[in-house]
Amino acid sequence: MPTRLSNLFLRTLREDPNDAEVAGHKLLVRAGYIRREAPGIFAWLPLGLRALRKVEAVVRAEMEAAGSQEVHFPGLLPREPYQVTGRWDEYGDNIFTLKDRKEADYLLAPTHEEVFTLLVKDLYSSYKDLPVSLFQIQTKYRDEARPRAGLLRGREFVMKDAYSFDVDDAGLDESYQIMRDAYERIFTRLGVEYVAVKADAGPMGGSKSEEFLSPSPIGEDTFVYTDAGYAANVEAVSVHPADPVDASHVPEAQTVDTPDAPTIESLVALLNDRYADEHDGQWQAGDTLKNVVLALTHPDDKRELVVVGLPGDRDVDLKRAEIAFAPAEVEPAVEADFEHHPGLVRGYIGPQADDTGTYALGERSVDGIRYLVDPRVSAGTEWVTGANAERRHALHVVAGRDFVADGIADVANVRDGDPAPDGSGPLRAARGVEIGHVFQLGRKYAEALGLQVLDRNGKLVTVTMGSYGIGVTRLLAVLAEANRDEKGLVWPEAVAPFQVHIVSTGKGDDVYRVGSDLADELERVGIEVLFDDRPKVSPGAKFKDAELLGMPHVLVVGKGLADGQLELWDRRAGTKQPIALEDAVAELRRRLGRD
Amino acid sequence: MPTRLSNLFLRTLREDPNDAEVAGHKLLVRAGYIRREAPGIFAWLPLGLRALRKVEAVVRAEMEAAGSQEVHFPGLLPREPYQVTGRWDEYGDNIFTLKDRKEADYLLAPTHEEVFTLLVKDLYSSYKDLPVSLFQIQTKYRDEARPRAGLLRGREFVMKDAYSFDVDDAGLDESYQIMRDAYERIFTRLGVEYVAVKADAGPMGGSKSEEFLSPSPIGEDTFVYTDAGYAANVEAVSVHPADPVDASHVPEAQTVDTPDAPTIESLVALLNDRYADEHDGQWQAGDTLKNVVLALTHPDDKRELVVVGLPGDRDVDLKRAEIAFAPAEVEPAVEADFEHHPGLVRGYIGPQADDTGTYALGERSVDGIRYLVDPRVSAGTEWVTGANAERRHALHVVAGRDFVADGIADVANVRDGDPAPDGSGPLRAARGVEIGHVFQLGRKYAEALGLQVLDRNGKLVTVTMGSYGIGVTRLLAVLAEANRDEKGLVWPEAVAPFQVHIVSTGKGDDVYRVGSDLADELERVGIEVLFDDRPKVSPGAKFKDAELLGMPHVLVVGKGLADGQLELWDRRAGTKQPIALEDAVAELRRRLGRD
Repeated sequence: MPTRLSNLFLRTLREDPNDAEVAGHKLLVRAGYIRREAPGIFAWLPLGLRALRKVEAVVRAEMEAAGSQEVHFPGLLPREPYQVTGRWDEYGDNIFTLKDRKEADYLLAPTHEEVFTLLVKDLYSSYKDLPVSLFQIQTKYRDEARPRAGLLRGREFVMKDAYSFDVDDAGLDESYQIMRDAYERIFTRLGVEYVAVKADAGPMGGSKSEEFLSPSPIGEDTFVYTDAGYAANVEAVSVHPADPVDASHVPEAQTVDTPDAPTIESLVALLNDRYADEHDGQWQAGDTLKNVVLALTHPDDKRELVVVGLPGDRDVDLKRAEIAFAPAEVEPAVEADFEHHPGLVRGYIGPQADDTGTYALGERSVDGIRYLVDPRVSAGTEWVTGANAERRHALHVVAGRDFVADGIADVANVRDGDPAPDGSGPLRAARGVEIGHVFQLGRKYAEALGLQVLDRNGKLVTVTMGSYGIGVTRLLAVLAEANRDEKGLVWPEAVAPFQVHIVSTGKGDDVYRVGSDLADELERVGIEVLFDDRPKVSPGAKFKDAELLGMPHVLVVGKGLADGQLELWDRRAGTKQPIALEDAVAELRRRLGRD
Repeated sequence: MPTRLSNLFLRTLREDPNDAEVAGHKLLVRAGYIRREAPGIFAWLPLGLRALRKVEAVVRAEMEAAGSQEVHFPGLLPREPYQVTGRWDEYGDNIFTLKDRKEADYLLAPTHEEVFTLLVKDLYSSYKDLPVSLFQIQTKYRDEARPRAGLLRGREFVMKDAYSFDVDDAGLDESYQIMRDAYERIFTRLGVEYVAVKADAGPMGGSKSEEFLSPSPIGEDTFVYTDAGYAANVEAVSVHPADPVDASHVPEAQTVDTPDAPTIESLVALLNDRYADEHDGQWQAGDTLKNVVLALTHPDDKRELVVVGLPGDRDVDLKRAEIAFAPAEVEPAVEADFEHHPGLVRGYIGPQADDTGTYALGERSVDGIRYLVDPRVSAGTEWVTGANAERRHALHVVAGRDFVADGIADVANVRDGDPAPDGSGPLRAARGVEIGHVFQLGRKYAEALGLQVLDRNGKLVTVTMGSYGIGVTRLLAVLAEANRDEKGLVWPEAVAPFQVHIVSTGKGDDVYRVGSDLADELERVGIEVLFDDRPKVSPGAKFKDAELLGMPHVLVVGKGLADGQLELWDRRAGTKQPIALEDAVAELRRRLGRD
């Protein structure tokens, strides 16, 4: 039965909602697809639910075609398994936790690795049972610090998560590839632009991992790529340590006055002004060694300061730092941190000893603050850096000669033009929304939870796992963002709540009767129809709604009907063409491939 | 594509699980349909999920046919709307609550009246928009004190909840009837036995309310009925206050010694022994007035004692008391309560004054403890009751003459043989599982949350609402309980995960090839097939699994195949009959109505 606008639970809005940040989200709200219930928490109205179900159906079909079997886990789970794997603590404030009436700890699961592992452990015991791939399409929860952009980063959201279980690494590689292929088919069927990039595994653990990002200026992830095929999330770019260089010609380190040079920029200006002859050519920001103080908060709540030395033309990328220092949380040091460590002279920190042989950083320092350096700060490189005294810097400070770092911290920002780690040329940067993620978890969860099977030789071996996620509600947000114009949404056929929107306008019963007959006829051949049968709404308002709601094909039954003429719109192409009443159904069937 | 048992994620169990209480639940676990994750919290394995989706599909189809529109609300909701209606406090420990990272209060919604009300308020403003009926099939949460019987009383469960919105009472009556009719169709299609009984509305508020109970000895609800059509949950039975009787002939109240008579039974024996001449015929328990001390805990945590006087042959039904005293919680008074009120002489409490004119109960008593009586304790009725002194009782105590109660408390247990409130004869009692509930909420939620629309005359009127629930996961439990035998589950066709289970057994490739061809052929005509293609499992084990899993039709491709013979089982009828290979598909299509 066609859905009639006269009684569809829907009110379109002419104005953008106040709380919407991105265009696609504004349209989803204005067109009555979703409604905000709390920060990052949304209700699905009839049209939105239909579109969401279509996305789910495509995901489900391709998962099943890839041999994965559907199950369904609860959202509310006891603490224990997440405690065993350490994720209860690692997620920290990012998960919702609660106590039941008996004071037992529960969480609203952000993903389900633990319980899938235990399920397979419960049922399976032999290599003959493997491989197995399981998935669910299920409501998940994360207590995001900054829910944003509507469905893009929600606190309650629908995710497809799948898990593969294999007896050996070769099997995992195969299972991973099967899922990766399924993901490509899913995004292609849905018409979502995507790029698969090397990813860091984050708190999931594991080794090989790729993200599927949908390129978009509203994306929260930055990725880099080369034309030769390298692609990685900036979080996953690893910079090779630079080779050592010969520093035998470098003069001794020398401490100099640098008044009015609290920033890298002012320091460089001062160097070029006063110390031009100490350097070949102009001084650049990249000649300075910037020492950034970071505060780590470990899972046991211990706070630790570390200092990262990196070329002055780079900054610490906090997301990359989060990964480098995981599971600790990372933030820039605050005033109080400096007060606790008077040895750190803010703006003038350096790793080398002062005249008295005292170090401010590293193992040999009083406070023992860890000093880590960017991979570009290799042995023999020469730097200008702070002299651990107000308004003083040191020239000719040589890594390996004047200081030795406690380790490497690959946390500097990655930039357009940086060389690709695989040597495939200069990197280009873009933004994207993460729509999928495939991980080789390996044995982390199986080991923690004791998932072993008997192998071919009757020996117990630990199972190796993969974990594969797709943000289903987020996909709908990405689709809305990518498929719209100034008038409204422009759905691809695969996700449109209805394929055809029939608009009857004008006086007299004929337009409504014919519209209704056409709707019935189309529904009989399996085409879903939204029928605007509202008697007292103006043609202009109906057309505006049709454009806002975004069904791919609009059929107008209006004043031309007396001459047997209708109008057929292609919402995406923006075309509106006359069509004879008797040809309308056949033409729509042709356009929709339902001949 | 048929599902093959050789790789279906399933392990059947020969033993009953330790934690299962009822037969249907044991079978669901043994047959690999569900798995317990925590008390009252279950995961759905592939077969269980398929069966659940079938139940959902029937519910959805009938809701849509009844004109209800599907939406989907979050499970995690902010406290505010539930605070406004008072349900945040009324539910108390029965809901899961939590704080987000900003210390804001949230709950896992047990039902969604509040947010549906706010949604309609947001979108609609005129009588022309009404009526509207909305529903969702959604995961709900209740922190049950005693989760039990598997899916029957879970803490995370799937519910279909629907809400109707009307401009006036006549509209609500109509909306209510439409839903009630839809419920009858749903339960009929699913093959679930049910009876609609008058119900108390409980914490939902509102007036007219019926429960759909599925009669079952494992049910938690007791209902009573007459052959003439009266049916009510015992919680909703109201006993008419008895008419006053003439007490002019009754002698003065008289206090007597009653040693060794601490119970009603021993008191009656003593009365018949010592005071036979004070009574026409034998003394009965029903001649005594039992005074039960209850402790109410009000939502503000205040504890209040009340005493209920009722005939000695009845007990207080705590569930009925919960309703009578809602929103307070009710429990029998404990030792400490008596210690705080030394005026209450345990076992010898009475409502009449003692020789000094002092009352232990009611307005005139020192402690002011409320005294309520059963509706049968009408003015003029004569009783033996406690004399407020150890081992002493009073005879000839007359209601209205010797004491006046503070009110009526209709909380006595309802018994087989009690007269029906509508005069339709003696009641019979049975147990049932609540599978659905239809309420006329009225204006409680709309008033609290300000849902008003303009009526025909341009005047703002408050909308009147109905609320309609079906326990979807519970329905599956009821179906499992009602459809089984000693060998396993016996699904009705409407909910079976697969309609046909093909078992290939024996040596040689032929049985597997033919089984596979038959499976493909059946799937092509839309019949879902589970194909047991396991090469190394004995015929006996395969047959046992087929019986345990419970598909309605089993087709065995075994040693008869050489002669062109198969075997067709009707799982419910228990018949097994030979059938020629060439007739098998046609016969199955006939049995399944897919000719």
